[in-house]
Amino acid sequence: MREALLKHPRLISLEGGEGAGKTSAIAAIRELLQSRGHEVVLTREPGGTPLAERIRELLLSSHEEPLAPETELLLMFASRSQHVREVIRPALQRGAYVVTDRFTDSSYAYQSDGRGLDRALVEELERRVVGLKPGLTLLLDLDVREGRARTSGRDLWPDRIESEQDDFFERVREGFRKRALAEPERFRVIDAGQPPAAVGAAVHGAVTSWLEANP
Amino acid sequence: MREALLKHPRLISLEGGEGAGKTSAIAAIRELLQSRGHEVVLTREPGGTPLAERIRELLLSSHEEPLAPETELLLMFASRSQHVREVIRPALQRGAYVVTDRFTDSSYAYQSDGRGLDRALVEELERRVVGLKPGLTLLLDLDVREGRARTSGRDLWPDRIESEQDDFFERVREGFRKRALAEPERFRVIDAGQPPAAVGAAVHGAVTSWLEANP
Repeated sequence: MREALLKHPRLISLEGGEGAGKTSAIAAIRELLQSRGHEVVLTREPGGTPLAERIRELLLSSHEEPLAPETELLLMFASRSQHVREVIRPALQRGAYVVTDRFTDSSYAYQSDGRGLDRALVEELERRVVGLKPGLTLLLDLDVREGRARTSGRDLWPDRIESEQDDFFERVREGFRKRALAEPERFRVIDAGQPPAAVGAAVHGAVTSWLEANP
Repeated sequence: MREALLKHPRLISLEGGEGAGKTSAIAAIRELLQSRGHEVVLTREPGGTPLAERIRELLLSSHEEPLAPETELLLMFASRSQHVREVIRPALQRGAYVVTDRFTDSSYAYQSDGRGLDRALVEELERRVVGLKPGLTLLLDLDVREGRARTSGRDLWPDRIESEQDDFFERVREGFRKRALAEPERFRVIDAGQPPAAVGAAVHGAVTSWLEANP
């Protein structure tokens, strides 16, 4: 079991609420990395392996019983544990870049800031089970109502977490922003309220300068 | 989040390998408690709620990918978290006895002693997520080969954990015995290799004296 948190320069995570444009940003990052000749693995959380996707289903489907916050956190980390061992570490070991739609920062923001769980438990799990941090994290920061307006068309059937109220998502957004402030060397905060071309340029700029500083 | 480990006198757990006779022992304990006018809730782990049973399926079915030991541990505790909140605590709060087929001791024995995971992680999860220990734990201790011989008829399709080799189950058995030695006030070790009537009498005696000491 690994206990040290290794920051890996080829692990890049995208964070932020729904509607912030993570999917477009990930496609742009793939193109940029591939144009420089790198192998790129795109993945997402919760999920990323067949078993982790089955855990994702448990997490996001509505249940006949209330899902306790601690249960939600442990399922997130069970999924992440599998994802790290089966997908992320093997890809990093063979020299690929891994671009993941969400990673451990989401557990701090959603389960600790959003649900109110003690962050010490999240820290223990990150340290003992994950053992790995992204070198670069892009936070696509967006007003909660704007994000909801953008996704209202596509989410005819919002999942269990998407069904939360605005005050939950405000706490999540604040959680992400606090983390970015605490780790400025890892985070790049991108204003996702700008027009798409400006967001794309900001993503491109952030990743390009990261690659130049970490060749 | 609860951080203190409360030992509850009305929570009784049964531990031991397959084939040791936990099911018969649990039925006998129910009868004994009911004959004294107590409400009794029988339950089991992994499982005990609809969601926890879905997690049990993930844990015990064979997968297309190897289940990492850390993932197994986190799924066990996700299931236990739900079980404690939805079944065990409410039953204890209304004054019932809860008799559970396996509890946290199984995670120490199977995931730490059996799989080799750091027990500090199990301790953190027990303390931060479960917060509750049985007042009385009956360990039905049985030779590994004898247990396997007894279950060979019923397990035409052994599950993922039952498919492990004897050396794994030897480590699990030793793990249970070490725990019983370390907490003699909580554990009663019963020789499950005796004839069924003698095992039944030992179970009856252990629970009766527990009830007399903890009315």
